[in-house]
Amino acid sequence: MSLVPLLSPERGYFPRNVWYIAGFSSELRDKPLARRICGHAVVMFRTAGGRAVALEDRCVHRGMPLSAGERDGDIIRCAYHGLEFDASGACTKIPGQARIPPGARVRSFPLVERDALLWIWPGDQEKADESLIVSRPYHTAPDWACVFGTLEVKANWQLIADNLLNLSHLQYVHKKTIGGDPDADDRAEVTVVRDGNRVRVTRWLLNVEPPPLHRMARGYTGPIDRWQEFEFEPCVLQFHSGAKEAGTGAREGRRDGAMDLRHFHAPTPQGPHSTLYFFTRAHNFRLDDAELTEKMRRSMLATFEEDKAVIEAQQARLLETEDEPLIDLRDDAANLHARRIVRQLMAQEDAAETSGRHLAHA
Amino acid sequence: MSLVPLLSPERGYFPRNVWYIAGFSSELRDKPLARRICGHAVVMFRTAGGRAVALEDRCVHRGMPLSAGERDGDIIRCAYHGLEFDASGACTKIPGQARIPPGARVRSFPLVERDALLWIWPGDQEKADESLIVSRPYHTAPDWACVFGTLEVKANWQLIADNLLNLSHLQYVHKKTIGGDPDADDRAEVTVVRDGNRVRVTRWLLNVEPPPLHRMARGYTGPIDRWQEFEFEPCVLQFHSGAKEAGTGAREGRRDGAMDLRHFHAPTPQGPHSTLYFFTRAHNFRLDDAELTEKMRRSMLATFEEDKAVIEAQQARLLETEDEPLIDLRDDAANLHARRIVRQLMAQEDAAETSGRHLAHA
Amino acid sequence: MSLVPLLSPERGYFPRNVWYIAGFSSELRDKPLARRICGHAVVMFRTAGGRAVALEDRCVHRGMPLSAGERDGDIIRCAYHGLEFDASGACTKIPGQARIPPGARVRSFPLVERDALLWIWPGDQEKADESLIVSRPYHTAPDWACVFGTLEVKANWQLIADNLLNLSHLQYVHKKTIGGDPDADDRAEVTVVRDGNRVRVTRWLLNVEPPPLHRMARGYTGPIDRWQEFEFEPCVLQFHSGAKEAGTGAREGRRDGAMDLRHFHAPTPQGPHSTLYFFTRAHNFRLDDAELTEKMRRSMLATFEEDKAVIEAQQARLLETEDEPLIDLRDDAANLHARRIVRQLMAQEDAAETSGRHLAHA
Repeated sequence: MSLVPLLSPERGYFPRNVWYIAGFSSELRDKPLARRICGHAVVMFRTAGGRAVALEDRCVHRGMPLSAGERDGDIIRCAYHGLEFDASGACTKIPGQARIPPGARVRSFPLVERDALLWIWPGDQEKADESLIVSRPYHTAPDWACVFGTLEVKANWQLIADNLLNLSHLQYVHKKTIGGDPDADDRAEVTVVRDGNRVRVTRWLLNVEPPPLHRMARGYTGPIDRWQEFEFEPCVLQFHSGAKEAGTGAREGRRDGAMDLRHFHAPTPQGPHSTLYFFTRAHNFRLDDAELTEKMRRSMLATFEEDKAVIEAQQARLLETEDEPLIDLRDDAANLHARRIVRQLMAQEDAAETSGRHLAHA
Repeated sequence: MSLVPLLSPERGYFPRNVWYIAGFSSELRDKPLARRICGHAVVMFRTAGGRAVALEDRCVHRGMPLSAGERDGDIIRCAYHGLEFDASGACTKIPGQARIPPGARVRSFPLVERDALLWIWPGDQEKADESLIVSRPYHTAPDWACVFGTLEVKANWQLIADNLLNLSHLQYVHKKTIGGDPDADDRAEVTVVRDGNRVRVTRWLLNVEPPPLHRMARGYTGPIDRWQEFEFEPCVLQFHSGAKEAGTGAREGRRDGAMDLRHFHAPTPQGPHSTLYFFTRAHNFRLDDAELTEKMRRSMLATFEEDKAVIEAQQARLLETEDEPLIDLRDDAANLHARRIVRQLMAQEDAAETSGRHLAHA
Repeated sequence: MSLVPLLSPERGYFPRNVWYIAGFSSELRDKPLARRICGHAVVMFRTAGGRAVALEDRCVHRGMPLSAGERDGDIIRCAYHGLEFDASGACTKIPGQARIPPGARVRSFPLVERDALLWIWPGDQEKADESLIVSRPYHTAPDWACVFGTLEVKANWQLIADNLLNLSHLQYVHKKTIGGDPDADDRAEVTVVRDGNRVRVTRWLLNVEPPPLHRMARGYTGPIDRWQEFEFEPCVLQFHSGAKEAGTGAREGRRDGAMDLRHFHAPTPQGPHSTLYFFTRAHNFRLDDAELTEKMRRSMLATFEEDKAVIEAQQARLLETEDEPLIDLRDDAANLHARRIVRQLMAQEDAAETSGRHLAHA
């Protein structure tokens, strides 16, 4: 398989009609928040009532980024000549001029706030279906403690998905954090299943040494059984992982008292070779231990900084050797599924767009 | 109107046969001065007699920038192999070689020093007409105190002209400096006149609160009448502004005792999206107050740094959204005139060049 | 002459089938060493037995730079998913997978270690002929003290060769180091000879003032006779220079007791406008004086930093004025020969490649 087609910006590099993460709820306060999302310059702000909205970050008068302006009640005011725009993107005031011309509006993007996440839809507004958003309740539920992080990664978003969907990298990239025992990793039992537009990976490591994180968080010292359940859907991933003392029945379904972790990953494209990588991790133990939670946050960030270093080095090399071959391995099964799903979605979108144009001309 | 055509470098982005500002007299001392002017690498130096000259900053032997070399009497000597060039650009010495080949010369640019300004002509030498340079005596006259400043702005020069020709931005961009009273700004009486290749804007703000600058410089506390008289000619601008206690007859022509300011602005293109923005400001009061003069200089610089931030953000956004529409407002009348003048000049130059080529082939 | 053709990357900018310097022996220790050589990302490492090898720095699985990995015995292990490659570039292990697919190999480059230098061949492996490497014994011989240095120069490698082959720059660029007496330089006796693919320049400066280096190193105070013998072969240069008290017979062949210096220069292209400039200098006197040796190293580095500044300024200007003319001087005879040799080699390589393709299709 070549990684090339999906790295070529002119051929598109992401499906448009899916939900992406634009940020965390906690990031959007009084000031407008500027983000690059799927190639678009986006400004987000909250109306007086607290509703989160997203507009194109470009005044229709002279192109000034609206994010340099200020929010005032339900509108955002341009920092250059003072034009005002409401939550729908309509211009509602032009200083020194009573008439507002019909073209005076900026694009708005569907934005949904749920489970402490801001979901944005970069494609056709009419197709934006909130029911497609899968709930991730552990971000806010009282029986979980959740930590949040973001990294800007100078790489195509799919290289991040590839990374997550081939866990054989753990023992090489994450020696200091979640790597664990190399030999055990080689013996992992891995199951990969495609289900519609989802890919699921299940991975069992039985009777293995606990990695540094598990020692720190739960105090494991003897051998443990570990499981990892990954799910990709365009274009987010969730990752449930757990561990329990070896031989205490986890594999047979008895997970009570286990160390449970819920990870959520959202590699949101900024551009073809730049990604905002949002991630969260929730744990179900020592919920009142703020110090532990902070350690969990820092260890999560350290882990993904290890990935970032690898992925950026990989991206740089791929960019300069696009015509040279690559080979796929057995452990790439899941990321090959995921790339196929992405390609199919993009092909469907292109087909729909072409047929839409035909209808319009008929 | 689209800002796009004038942002496309391949279509040209400035008229060639007009005078531009290359610097201030005070900047050109013993050492050669390197500047990028209208896309050209230019080196300026003074002959032994003090005459300012401008040459292409590129040795004809191996391309070394002459500005890295040294001035010696009437010549400039290349820092690499020691070739010498006179004020006309002719090579006058090649070390180790008696014969100077006929092609051994670099381009020279017409350069005129007047009113403490260095005026350069990037177009056809034969068309360079010094009489086209309008005198700006307040730069050196004893009844004015003049301050000077330069900013490098990462934007097309016309975005700077646009900025100056639509003063409705004052109350949004310059709150802290010259912004004044928003409501008053909305009620400004504005007159825009095109006169040949000049555009004139006159703006009256009657009975308004004095902005911070006016309080600082003249101690106004009560309402004032303000006037602003802008004139654009390719490719410089002058801006006369004044203020007087409200209702004391300024509008009817009695400006005696007024606070008078003379501004001069020269946005000289370096490249399509980079401009050297020269500006000066002269005041007619408290001429012996060096501390005030320094305050005037700093407040001028602070004001144009506010513009620079806005214009660079605007340029960056325009560059990535060249195909998206923009709308014009009533307050853009003057900058639309200015852009039309520039386009016409460039079209005339292109036509003259084409016809010149035809004659040459006939 | 135009410098342009050899600056255009798409037309090639170096002969492929010659030996280049990839580094010094002392640079290659336990860790893999990443270098950009003639456009290729190369990783070098030593096998358990100490043999230096060079591979393409790109894992065949997902493009990860192998140089981020670790050497282990005779193999290098990828930092991402743990694939292992031997000195020939063959993949010898894929974690979690017994079968190694046939395409699982990376390119290897011929690498020869000789005279404390690492020689690399970027062209066809079959043509790599070690006997073409000229010995430079003064790098390691006991009757010489040799110092080593490297600079990254943001310029085409041929501008460095040009610099070395026209020594008339000495008095302008190197006033503070090896420049000497300008008038004497103008009177230098220069002989230029082309011999096959080599160019030799001999230069005598008789009865001249000693430059700073000569005063420092040998204590010369009175006039000296100096000689400089340059030899270019694609794509390295050697430079033997010497000095003796004026009139003591050096010109007639009596060089006993002279100050002798052996320089070796290797401008190895990284890319079209970026070069790794390796240089060495050996002296034959005060061999036990470590302080002098360190002074010699520092003076060598200072000298080439002067060249680097000039060459980078030149390159930047040439890049933006590729279509403008340049002129050649008498003192360019040697570098015109060298450029001709390089062009001929490249033309021969292109012809051989074309004919090779014809044979393959016949």
